[in-house]
Amino acid sequence: MLPHEDAILHASDSKFCFAVSDDEVVLRLRLARGCVPDRVEAVYGGKYEYAERRESAEMKRAFEDGLFAWYTVRLKLSDVRLVYVFRLTYEGRIYYFSEDGLTEDYDFSLSYYNSFQLPYINPIDVLHRVKWMKNTVFYQIFVDRFNIGRRDKDMSYVTVKWGDPVNAHSFAGGDIKGITEKLDYIKSVGANAVYLTPVFKAPSNHKYDIEDYKAIDPAFGTTDDLKELVAQAHARGMYVVLDAVFNHCSSRIMQFRDVLEKGKRSRYFDWFVIHGDRADMQALNYECFASCPYMPKWNTSNPEVADYLTDIALYWIREADIDGWRLDVSDEVSHAFWRKMRLSVKALKPECVLIGENWHDAGSYLAGDQFDSIMNYAFTKAAMDFFAFGKFGAKGMADKLSSLLMRNGDNVNFMMLNLLDSHDTHRFLTRVGGDRRKLLSAFALSVFFTGVPFIYYGTEIAMEGGYDPDCRRTMDWERAAKRGEVFDAIRELAELRRNSDALRDGDIAVRAEGELLIVTRRTERETAVLAVNNTPNAAVFEGESIPPFGYRIQRRWL
Amino acid sequence: MLPHEDAILHASDSKFCFAVSDDEVVLRLRLARGCVPDRVEAVYGGKYEYAERRESAEMKRAFEDGLFAWYTVRLKLSDVRLVYVFRLTYEGRIYYFSEDGLTEDYDFSLSYYNSFQLPYINPIDVLHRVKWMKNTVFYQIFVDRFNIGRRDKDMSYVTVKWGDPVNAHSFAGGDIKGITEKLDYIKSVGANAVYLTPVFKAPSNHKYDIEDYKAIDPAFGTTDDLKELVAQAHARGMYVVLDAVFNHCSSRIMQFRDVLEKGKRSRYFDWFVIHGDRADMQALNYECFASCPYMPKWNTSNPEVADYLTDIALYWIREADIDGWRLDVSDEVSHAFWRKMRLSVKALKPECVLIGENWHDAGSYLAGDQFDSIMNYAFTKAAMDFFAFGKFGAKGMADKLSSLLMRNGDNVNFMMLNLLDSHDTHRFLTRVGGDRRKLLSAFALSVFFTGVPFIYYGTEIAMEGGYDPDCRRTMDWERAAKRGEVFDAIRELAELRRNSDALRDGDIAVRAEGELLIVTRRTERETAVLAVNNTPNAAVFEGESIPPFGYRIQRRWL
Repeated sequence: MLPHEDAILHASDSKFCFAVSDDEVVLRLRLARGCVPDRVEAVYGGKYEYAERRESAEMKRAFEDGLFAWYTVRLKLSDVRLVYVFRLTYEGRIYYFSEDGLTEDYDFSLSYYNSFQLPYINPIDVLHRVKWMKNTVFYQIFVDRFNIGRRDKDMSYVTVKWGDPVNAHSFAGGDIKGITEKLDYIKSVGANAVYLTPVFKAPSNHKYDIEDYKAIDPAFGTTDDLKELVAQAHARGMYVVLDAVFNHCSSRIMQFRDVLEKGKRSRYFDWFVIHGDRADMQALNYECFASCPYMPKWNTSNPEVADYLTDIALYWIREADIDGWRLDVSDEVSHAFWRKMRLSVKALKPECVLIGENWHDAGSYLAGDQFDSIMNYAFTKAAMDFFAFGKFGAKGMADKLSSLLMRNGDNVNFMMLNLLDSHDTHRFLTRVGGDRRKLLSAFALSVFFTGVPFIYYGTEIAMEGGYDPDCRRTMDWERAAKRGEVFDAIRELAELRRNSDALRDGDIAVRAEGELLIVTRRTERETAVLAVNNTPNAAVFEGESIPPFGYRIQRRWL
Repeated sequence: MLPHEDAILHASDSKFCFAVSDDEVVLRLRLARGCVPDRVEAVYGGKYEYAERRESAEMKRAFEDGLFAWYTVRLKLSDVRLVYVFRLTYEGRIYYFSEDGLTEDYDFSLSYYNSFQLPYINPIDVLHRVKWMKNTVFYQIFVDRFNIGRRDKDMSYVTVKWGDPVNAHSFAGGDIKGITEKLDYIKSVGANAVYLTPVFKAPSNHKYDIEDYKAIDPAFGTTDDLKELVAQAHARGMYVVLDAVFNHCSSRIMQFRDVLEKGKRSRYFDWFVIHGDRADMQALNYECFASCPYMPKWNTSNPEVADYLTDIALYWIREADIDGWRLDVSDEVSHAFWRKMRLSVKALKPECVLIGENWHDAGSYLAGDQFDSIMNYAFTKAAMDFFAFGKFGAKGMADKLSSLLMRNGDNVNFMMLNLLDSHDTHRFLTRVGGDRRKLLSAFALSVFFTGVPFIYYGTEIAMEGGYDPDCRRTMDWERAAKRGEVFDAIRELAELRRNSDALRDGDIAVRAEGELLIVTRRTERETAVLAVNNTPNAAVFEGESIPPFGYRIQRRWL
């Protein structure tokens, strides 16, 4: 019998079987790592002729982790009503794997009961790649802390001198014009897309407590400032992604104030989730973000709320031509709302990217109907475990990265934001005890991993910082003016990412070679290889030495 | 180490973790059958306090098949932002299972990276049970073959005398009024819901080729006839479900005729999927059902088509107050369309049931956003394999039924249409070689299995028939007048199903005891047990004898 039969896994219309275009499907079959058949094939055909006519395609053992091996194949279909089973040849014997499990024989005449199938590729259900994301390195900006552009504005709200330590309530004075002024700087880092934390009218410095979704916060500037930022970015071939805070709002927003005042008589009462007849900020008898009374949760099960928030998503695309939305606390918002918003946004601007803030496996949001990708905090965690905590070596890291690639479909993987840190985490450099070699190796890994590299402002000048608020220090422009080794290395890696077809589009393989972590990206014409030596000893990779905690890159062309 | 580590399976927001109400969640953890820990627990808590405060709930080994065991628990939540990991105790050692896999220790302070979670139960995303389905036994009618009610109508279209053999093109004269006249008969069979194959204007006898979705086919009657059927059904506490053919239509429909005439200049050109500038019925250069030029496929990726078909779904609810839609070839229609239709239909009539025609694992349609359930052809296949083909014995059948229960969430299971046959299969009695004992045992099984029993017209009088068109013979009213043993047994089982709390609402356990298949349904107050003896020898179950190919039922109350 086939070993580890109980490890075999496949499901139709899932991350194991998904369309990557209107006539191409990727199949994945998971086996136990210890199960190595002589041959694994997909036996496939059109739904209405499968009993009579079938083709077979060999599947490649493409990924392995500590427990599993994934076989994959990409099929180009003439009939998009796909029916298939798997055929495994092991020690000379044939096995079939269908919805009825593993069998030694398979009755194709009854396949309409128990084959696998992707019965029709309807284009509206396909998760396509947003084209510009191919070529992109992100740069995240916490707006209050990046740069002051409008020096003429009323600065009385500012509570901290630029460069001084910040606390949870500090205002430092950064604004949108300050970002526009630094677009050339950001480009010089090698990034070509900026993601800004929220810019709409809100009491706090972080502005995740929005009281007016259609107004730029006065401290940050005006709608014209935002338009100018986007226009200047587009003129430079750069992109702008804003932060959509649709899980909750500020208790000061008009609708919630109305509810506070009128209770059940408010026409907005059902826009929130209130346990009782009145909202009571002391008793906190309503749903909110975390346990923050000042951030009441929107009831996105209410179609009126869904319309209201969708209108906001469309408004800023129309008004300022932004290129995407990052979706705050997206995992607590209803699927139904995200589906509605996606259809509306993509109808208006198909190339508008939608990136969820889901820290966990987000499979139920990434099936084509909601987000394009997420902030890949699972990548962050893997990088921490490997570079900072030493929880596993190269082999463990290769296993972990391979398994992460099998969490979502290929097009999602290409759009994943592979971040090392953000305004919600320790800075990565601080996590690795200030060791710049580890920071750069980790960034090199994010450049080679399938997806989009992500620079949290200041990383390029080796800024440090612990957990919030320490990770939100003011940008050190004096140090930035001097650039330095970290800057040059990050710039070089970012530019490599943007100019290499293999890194933009290539297949990926991740493996360990001794203590070296090897990531290979490959297109038909180019091969790019990263070797990471995450040890205190020098190492050698294909004749070239790699210093302790360093990395080495090789590229080859056909 | 824990044995069979590579068989462990769980995923959040899936059939392994789903809300069954606005504050209740079911968790399932799959282990290898051979892995029997001393204790399996869910360690759970609120998302924003999980690092500090957690509860644990023991999980029960509820289902087993040949390879796996499923542990389940139902949690009532005070904070609907659920975070959890699993804790397994095996040979005195503790193991944790999280998104990072199986580990001997778990760092709860970093759980926001790698725990499992169902981050918020948004009511709009919850798949609730349609209440009336609890109490329901279905009766399917192929309208042209059931009963002629309007004897005054133009019968010139009728091509076959009632009772004579039918072919694929026969018209026998059955109509809607004929069904209304037989509602008391259907009720006497023990059924209380009728599902009709399509009734709208269409050239064929089956009417899956609709040319006017808002007109009843003249051969079947009028809109008033349909209203009268529904009113008479409701007056008897019965329900009416119609067939929604939204994958394709007739080539005679106005929109397709316009396309045939005008090609690309037709405003309906994008309502279909046409490869070229003109639709050509000879060349068949457009997508259609199977390979039938007369049934062009709707392009449900087009929002105009989605609106058009949704309007039809709503129209008949408003017009005739129908209780549900069965969705033809639902697996080939876009997910996006079904989502839109569900939201619209449920907003109009929350208790309108939506039942897909998916013959395969339909997990991607049954997550709460599309259908309530499907026609459970996997149950049909299992019943065939057990009762007709002898592919496995009681143990294999218990394994198969258990694994089918783990394919979908609990609320879906309760609404599954557990059919033995339909207008698209051989009649079950014919599959089992005419052995009425096997038919009745299989029907008893469908009555005891979680879900809704389903009687294809004539089953109650032991009608036989091979594959389409033979399974669509005219109803034998002479035999029906005599009733007989099969009728009495089916009626008794159907009434038992409608009157037993255990069968309506109870938990289920399926196991084999020797060659007996045992299905147990249990609520706090009632236990109902079915023992099926699918062998040619008499058997004994708890002191009572069961004849060859017979069954025995026991009920106990607290």
